[in-house]
Amino acid sequence: MQNECRSLAQSLFSPRSIALVGASADAAKNNARPQRFLRAHGYTGRILPINPGRDEIFGERAYPDVRSAPGPIDHAFIMVPAKAVPDVIDQCCEREVPVATIFSAGFAELGEEGLARQRAIVERARAGGLRLIGPNCMGVVNVPGHTALSINAVLADGALRPGPLSVISQSGSMLGTLLSRAQPRGLGFSKLVSLGNECDLGVGEIADLLVDDPDTGAILLFLETFRDAHHLAHAARRAHLAGKPVIAFKLGRSEVGRRAAASHTGAMVGGDELATAFFRAHGILRVDMMESLFELPMLVAGHRPPKGRRVAVLTGTGGAAAMVADRLGVLGAEVVAPPAAMIERLRAEGLPISDSPITDIPMGGSDKGAYTAILSALLDSDHCDAVVSVIGSSSRTNPQVVAERVLKANPRNKPLAVFLAPLADEGLALLHASAVAGFRTPESCADSVNAYLNWRTPVPECALDRNALESADAVLRRLGAPAGSDRLNERDAGALFAALGIPTAPAQVINSPDQAIDAAGPVAVKLLSPDIPHKTDARMVCLNLTGPAIAAAVRSMFTRAANEFPQARVDGVLVQSMEHGLAEVILGLRRDPELGPVVMLGSGGILAELRRSFSVRLAPVSLEAAHEMIDEVAELALLQGYRNLPRGDIDALARAVQSMSMLAAVSARTVAEAEINPLIVKAEGEGVVAVDGLVVFDEKHNTGGRQ
Amino acid sequence: MQNECRSLAQSLFSPRSIALVGASADAAKNNARPQRFLRAHGYTGRILPINPGRDEIFGERAYPDVRSAPGPIDHAFIMVPAKAVPDVIDQCCEREVPVATIFSAGFAELGEEGLARQRAIVERARAGGLRLIGPNCMGVVNVPGHTALSINAVLADGALRPGPLSVISQSGSMLGTLLSRAQPRGLGFSKLVSLGNECDLGVGEIADLLVDDPDTGAILLFLETFRDAHHLAHAARRAHLAGKPVIAFKLGRSEVGRRAAASHTGAMVGGDELATAFFRAHGILRVDMMESLFELPMLVAGHRPPKGRRVAVLTGTGGAAAMVADRLGVLGAEVVAPPAAMIERLRAEGLPISDSPITDIPMGGSDKGAYTAILSALLDSDHCDAVVSVIGSSSRTNPQVVAERVLKANPRNKPLAVFLAPLADEGLALLHASAVAGFRTPESCADSVNAYLNWRTPVPECALDRNALESADAVLRRLGAPAGSDRLNERDAGALFAALGIPTAPAQVINSPDQAIDAAGPVAVKLLSPDIPHKTDARMVCLNLTGPAIAAAVRSMFTRAANEFPQARVDGVLVQSMEHGLAEVILGLRRDPELGPVVMLGSGGILAELRRSFSVRLAPVSLEAAHEMIDEVAELALLQGYRNLPRGDIDALARAVQSMSMLAAVSARTVAEAEINPLIVKAEGEGVVAVDGLVVFDEKHNTGGRQ
Repeated sequence: MQNECRSLAQSLFSPRSIALVGASADAAKNNARPQRFLRAHGYTGRILPINPGRDEIFGERAYPDVRSAPGPIDHAFIMVPAKAVPDVIDQCCEREVPVATIFSAGFAELGEEGLARQRAIVERARAGGLRLIGPNCMGVVNVPGHTALSINAVLADGALRPGPLSVISQSGSMLGTLLSRAQPRGLGFSKLVSLGNECDLGVGEIADLLVDDPDTGAILLFLETFRDAHHLAHAARRAHLAGKPVIAFKLGRSEVGRRAAASHTGAMVGGDELATAFFRAHGILRVDMMESLFELPMLVAGHRPPKGRRVAVLTGTGGAAAMVADRLGVLGAEVVAPPAAMIERLRAEGLPISDSPITDIPMGGSDKGAYTAILSALLDSDHCDAVVSVIGSSSRTNPQVVAERVLKANPRNKPLAVFLAPLADEGLALLHASAVAGFRTPESCADSVNAYLNWRTPVPECALDRNALESADAVLRRLGAPAGSDRLNERDAGALFAALGIPTAPAQVINSPDQAIDAAGPVAVKLLSPDIPHKTDARMVCLNLTGPAIAAAVRSMFTRAANEFPQARVDGVLVQSMEHGLAEVILGLRRDPELGPVVMLGSGGILAELRRSFSVRLAPVSLEAAHEMIDEVAELALLQGYRNLPRGDIDALARAVQSMSMLAAVSARTVAEAEINPLIVKAEGEGVVAVDGLVVFDEKHNTGGRQ
Repeated sequence: MQNECRSLAQSLFSPRSIALVGASADAAKNNARPQRFLRAHGYTGRILPINPGRDEIFGERAYPDVRSAPGPIDHAFIMVPAKAVPDVIDQCCEREVPVATIFSAGFAELGEEGLARQRAIVERARAGGLRLIGPNCMGVVNVPGHTALSINAVLADGALRPGPLSVISQSGSMLGTLLSRAQPRGLGFSKLVSLGNECDLGVGEIADLLVDDPDTGAILLFLETFRDAHHLAHAARRAHLAGKPVIAFKLGRSEVGRRAAASHTGAMVGGDELATAFFRAHGILRVDMMESLFELPMLVAGHRPPKGRRVAVLTGTGGAAAMVADRLGVLGAEVVAPPAAMIERLRAEGLPISDSPITDIPMGGSDKGAYTAILSALLDSDHCDAVVSVIGSSSRTNPQVVAERVLKANPRNKPLAVFLAPLADEGLALLHASAVAGFRTPESCADSVNAYLNWRTPVPECALDRNALESADAVLRRLGAPAGSDRLNERDAGALFAALGIPTAPAQVINSPDQAIDAAGPVAVKLLSPDIPHKTDARMVCLNLTGPAIAAAVRSMFTRAANEFPQARVDGVLVQSMEHGLAEVILGLRRDPELGPVVMLGSGGILAELRRSFSVRLAPVSLEAAHEMIDEVAELALLQGYRNLPRGDIDALARAVQSMSMLAAVSARTVAEAEINPLIVKAEGEGVVAVDGLVVFDEKHNTGGRQ
């Protein structure tokens, strides 16, 4: 029945007709809001209230069901109880409605039963070509398009201010929180999307639509989780190319704390470091404070990621500027004094500025154009990557003058953050009207500048090493899928790592207690069994053995394995050379349920368990990224020429990190998790060697056999 | 000429007469402001403008100098140029003015020359019995007393709101920043003091006056540095007893970053950890965010320090509550679910709350008194130490109803923080009018709750161990003051530590190359000389020697010392048993220029230099505090029963920490700095042993001889 081919974005944001399914005629009910809000905010298309009990609602003709509503329907907004939703979905499909937004709750947010209900509606919608927003969401608002299709109470709050900010939120109530705070500051919005349970259209796909939206200048994300990380990564790359910053506030930073003492790679990599790695890799700016979400866009608009972390701070009011500078210092920014030549030049012009990190505007300078002259000099200079200007009481008593002075300084030469120390809402609004980023607190100012300093160009996709992958696949095919186990024993894991190019300690496998052993020692002796996880605790690992003790240990392990673990598969006993080097690291791979395969590099030994020092990246990683990871692990500074200590083979370690990351892409089986612990780093030029390793397959995705 | 005995506080805050020295008749000038502000804010006392060029200023009779002004003068406000200040001081002394506030700049803030000028005026004032505020300060305001004796532009901003908050600030402009932000929120003030260069009256002495001020309910400090830490500690103890919270925002947190890679105790102890230790020890609440300074007082008013770190979070709006809870988690708070019994009881009452850490108010609950019932249950329960309530759009649409619901819940049973998610200034003001702490951002809410959780009762003053001190003094007297050096050699330092009760490794001193050595080894051999600082680099330390190698090393050191360091005093060669234990720590004492003697305990070895892990306290420390310090050094968890590792002698380590702290109190000489590096911690019951030590005296304070 749709006569015309319209894009998803058009149906979603600019529908010509909207069915309000479950519309109420009681103005006090939530279900009455969308109709009231649409009209109140100037929607000029057709509104089709759907309510079997009424012929008319608030002056619009009402219809008993979607089926009987006349003409093409671009967008359905569903407010009926959860149990009635499937039928509405069917009717929408029948009527070839392209997109439906489901406000109704009672789905995945309730647990298993609700999840099943949700899956069922997605299945119906997919079959009928219907895209879904929600369920359990607040709706969609197109501010310049006068389409307020939402139940959010903030829409009762008066006119919306159009502007370049678009918001995608996994929490519906955050839209009201952000709008109510940003609009009085002079900030305007384009599209607002509440995603609820995100059963179909997700953050990434919506962000992708907004990259092409001419009214959207910046995409703001309020995230609780990742459900479509690949889409989001793709959208973020496109947004970066289009010059539209993507800025995220993400919950879940304190999971880190909860996992702090865990020892295993999987648990050591907290969700939040991963999220940070993801944002960084894809050019998304991450903020730590709520109001930074709408304060930051103007700071970065028109700018590219910075070259360094150097910030110039200019002020006429000491205490307030020190608050920003101090916090910037805590966040790892360098607050830098102007170069001597600039100080001399300005002093020669009668502007006796200090040579301290915080540049003070000389007394009375505000009357003499000093502010503009000094700010211009900082914005034009390449000694800093961003400029912070802190303004005191004049921003309250004289906001117009302050805004003019800032504008005269050419504020777009470089990211400029202006913090107004007193309460100065008018000053903030004036700055924003001139597209200058104004900040309400010293903390959000420092947070936003830091988010800019952390901003990186999206990393190019790392090419896979086809040769290594082929070798690894050959090993996996040769090993086959061992019956009854989802993991490789130490020897086979070593063979796989070796195929990828990671050297492993020389070893022989002893298959029976009586087999001759060709080793004088010192060696490590380990039982080979995928079924005994904590071998050290089970005394199935002996280190540093020499001479006859070797054979004795081998015999003892066979005997004890048979007695103590009669159910365990035993693949023999490994006799492996003891390896020594300058340091031990843990190198791991795992599949994050939200973000996919990630590589983790951490310091080894028991200290690593007490104080988590590690670095994480999405796989695959380039050699350059691997070197960055090594730099991020504090203890590994010991290997990089610290205090005349011998240097470690950092290049070999970087290659091993890259090789481990390739393991995510083998095709013979799907690796769920892999770990080398320890990987020993030897002296420069002597390489690295894997001493113990673990590979676990994901049998659900096992492309090699059993399902 | 003063006829009546008035207190300093009366003259400072409630003067009956004020001389405005350097008052201007030009309303546009800063120097005209105090007179205008005093009258505008309702000052009813006598104003005496002092200006040699006018008979009258703004309708008040003016006088050429302080000397000729009639009647008693309670307070002089000095605005003349710096060079004219000394004469004004003299006149004030002559007229027996009890206190003068100096706005004039041009003193210590300019460096050495200005500092000399400042010292000179302090000397004159002390001689004449005149107390000083400033110089380079903004002045003093008594809000309920209608005395606005300040040049701060914020006073042009309309009426001041009286209330319980008093502010002492080392940055004058911060007063305007805080007032402009707090007053529209419904918060009121009592006393405001800008201290400038703090040449005489400082933070501590003013805070002490405010403890006795009936109009002051909480004392807020904006600090850049400490100039009178002992006064402040004293005032904070008294304020705690009086039930008046002292809340500090202190700059200087990022010094830590700058010193991150330093190895030496002195440099390792950053100013900020010390400040934190100081605040904690004296019951001062420290906030990290500017607006927490005025948002926190109501949270803690009437409460005592908490028992634990458990916070209950209640909300009807998911995203906003998650922001607060997430941040609380990052700050180390425990966000706790209600106990099962409470959940059951509430569910039985028809309030189906979740058993998750964040308690959700059931849908529609806002209509049925559910909010009040659940909040009351949380505030009455002892499963948590504080309660956070997050309120969404209703705080904007229905602030009166929200405030009433909170009040019905008995909000003073426990610290209660209410975060209003949207912009809801009216809601915040209504909460504050009912003495409930409302928060404007999720970050300041979490910061304030965390400040409460970190709050401790002031530690009792630690008694000095007189016996240890007498033994140490005896050692110092025996050693005398060695000529030409301000430090002890390793042997003598060891003797001093031993006298305090810290065991040192057995050793003998070899005085000549040919002296017989009674040691088979393994031993360490070290040249004894106070004049060669980096002995390892100079190869004057050899470890692990046995047999004839010992004598060879001793001879070689004597020879090389004579050849390579002919100027150095050589006190012999130390032959010391090699000591082994479970861990090495660094234990140090130094005198902070602001806070006095402090004790530092850190992890030892090279890792400690890469990742600073240490704990610091003001000396002397109690055994209890020493145990806390040990708990704060992450690596020392290895000694406390971690993963079946052998336990270290934690009690002996705590005793050593306490002993080191006593060194600050010896009387025979003044110890500027001492360090044991390493102090070896042995297995439980086997004690600790000092292997290498350093003691440096402060010759300026050398009570034992040479000056």
